[in-house]
Amino acid sequence: MRVSVIGGSTVPTPIESLAEDVGRLLAQRGHTVVCGGLGGVMEAACRGAKDAGGTTIGILPGEDRDEANEFVDLPIVTGLGHARNALVAMNGDAVIAIDGAGGTLSEIGYGSVFDRPIAGLKTQQVGALDGFKSCETPEEAVEFIEREA
Amino acid sequence: MRVSVIGGSTVPTPIESLAEDVGRLLAQRGHTVVCGGLGGVMEAACRGAKDAGGTTIGILPGEDRDEANEFVDLPIVTGLGHARNALVAMNGDAVIAIDGAGGTLSEIGYGSVFDRPIAGLKTQQVGALDGFKSCETPEEAVEFIEREA
Amino acid sequence: MRVSVIGGSTVPTPIESLAEDVGRLLAQRGHTVVCGGLGGVMEAACRGAKDAGGTTIGILPGEDRDEANEFVDLPIVTGLGHARNALVAMNGDAVIAIDGAGGTLSEIGYGSVFDRPIAGLKTQQVGALDGFKSCETPEEAVEFIEREA
Amino acid sequence: MRVSVIGGSTVPTPIESLAEDVGRLLAQRGHTVVCGGLGGVMEAACRGAKDAGGTTIGILPGEDRDEANEFVDLPIVTGLGHARNALVAMNGDAVIAIDGAGGTLSEIGYGSVFDRPIAGLKTQQVGALDGFKSCETPEEAVEFIEREA
Repeated sequence: MRVSVIGGSTVPTPIESLAEDVGRLLAQRGHTVVCGGLGGVMEAACRGAKDAGGTTIGILPGEDRDEANEFVDLPIVTGLGHARNALVAMNGDAVIAIDGAGGTLSEIGYGSVFDRPIAGLKTQQVGALDGFKSCETPEEAVEFIEREA
Repeated sequence: MRVSVIGGSTVPTPIESLAEDVGRLLAQRGHTVVCGGLGGVMEAACRGAKDAGGTTIGILPGEDRDEANEFVDLPIVTGLGHARNALVAMNGDAVIAIDGAGGTLSEIGYGSVFDRPIAGLKTQQVGALDGFKSCETPEEAVEFIEREA
Repeated sequence: MRVSVIGGSTVPTPIESLAEDVGRLLAQRGHTVVCGGLGGVMEAACRGAKDAGGTTIGILPGEDRDEANEFVDLPIVTGLGHARNALVAMNGDAVIAIDGAGGTLSEIGYGSVFDRPIAGLKTQQVGALDGFKSCETPEEAVEFIEREA
Repeated sequence: MRVSVIGGSTVPTPIESLAEDVGRLLAQRGHTVVCGGLGGVMEAACRGAKDAGGTTIGILPGEDRDEANEFVDLPIVTGLGHARNALVAMNGDAVIAIDGAGGTLSEIGYGSVFDRPIAGLKTQQVGALDGFKSCETPEEAVEFIEREA
């Protein structure tokens, strides 16, 4: 299935490692990574997925495909700015959120709007939200979304 | 200033009353209410604002202005579906979130993306989010955003 | 009714005069001007409308209300870039196109998609398009859309 | 390169044949077909491309990937309604327009906004539009865009 991996565009190294692990695990289990196509969590998740021979889709806020990070196989430009966050959530069958701030929160919210299971790794506490589960490891996150999607 | 009032389209009566109080207070203090134009919190906030002689803007997900609730002075259609949530947050100078689920969370996230102060009333716990403050009363919410915007 | 006035953001002076005449005539006949909120035809149409005591709505491509020209009463920000052209056409009950290039053509196309009557003044030849009529004067354009909307 | 093939969702059989020929020729020359993902010209172009072993991307107006025609390899959902037309034009390096009405015209307009070469086959007359050339055959259309992109 397709899994949207969401999170900040500038994050500390341990978060990048976590995102890379998530991307790698998703690819190993045959899933395609969807993301916002830029840096930070997005780039790390794509790098992990490519490292495991997977496929990556980047849905960009701008109009230029060259803005995609180098691990995006299929860049899609939108020119929508932040409104493209809706498309990132919508194009996955499930969502894994890693760290992140307001933009990530908007995508978690959209994940719930679109009835996607959403696994959170070191992300905001979002209280009781339909479909959301706070997870401790990439394995737990991937198992959760595989079970719920 | 313009204040985006966000929240669920179907909410219990006490939440509607709260939203109506927020709308009324905003209008009394000279602010324009921006909302998503539909029912529930959106309609109640508009009703309160109109009751106090205020002005209301409804930014609708669909293509038909007639979908706006009857208390919207200025309906704007977008045809964007849920992506219009970005526009609701963006068109206010501050955000007041009341109750709500995923859609409201997406708008809280966008409020932070656009550097708006965001007051939450009986809304999700969102952990540490730049600009967000959980408030107890309409008065506290309005005072917070007036101070921070 | 609401009338979307569309056209280029940088146009020669005679085109600006034409757009100003269109805006003035629309306001004199009680219509609200909807436009893209920027310069050129958009600004001239708003100036004409305000000169006649009318009301103007500007639906902007960016995220900053201050980008609106000074004759816009109600700026709406979208952050959608060129995709906001759909919203400009959709928010009028009719369309008057003046001069313009690709962006204007996209809005003429959207006018037809949304079943609006579209009057063209010195705009592209668009062949046989449902709802489109090439007109010679502001009076003819306004009469056409009033009859067809 | 990527080529956006645009046109009506319900078209007569000769137009479908023409679109299929365009899709096949694009694939034979190593190009990826981008389209709106639905029926008519979009489906025929994808069918032709797949017949020649090519790759197809469908950028859908709705929120459900299952709305894509069966020849779309990579469906992208947007939920944007007609505003997705901007994305269809933007995601190609060039545009080939076939027949079509208002929606197609909006995409031709966007093609010009984004500085794409645009070949028209049995499409509206659009007067003098930067980048647009009316062509007689799929071969002429493809040669034109290959030369200009």
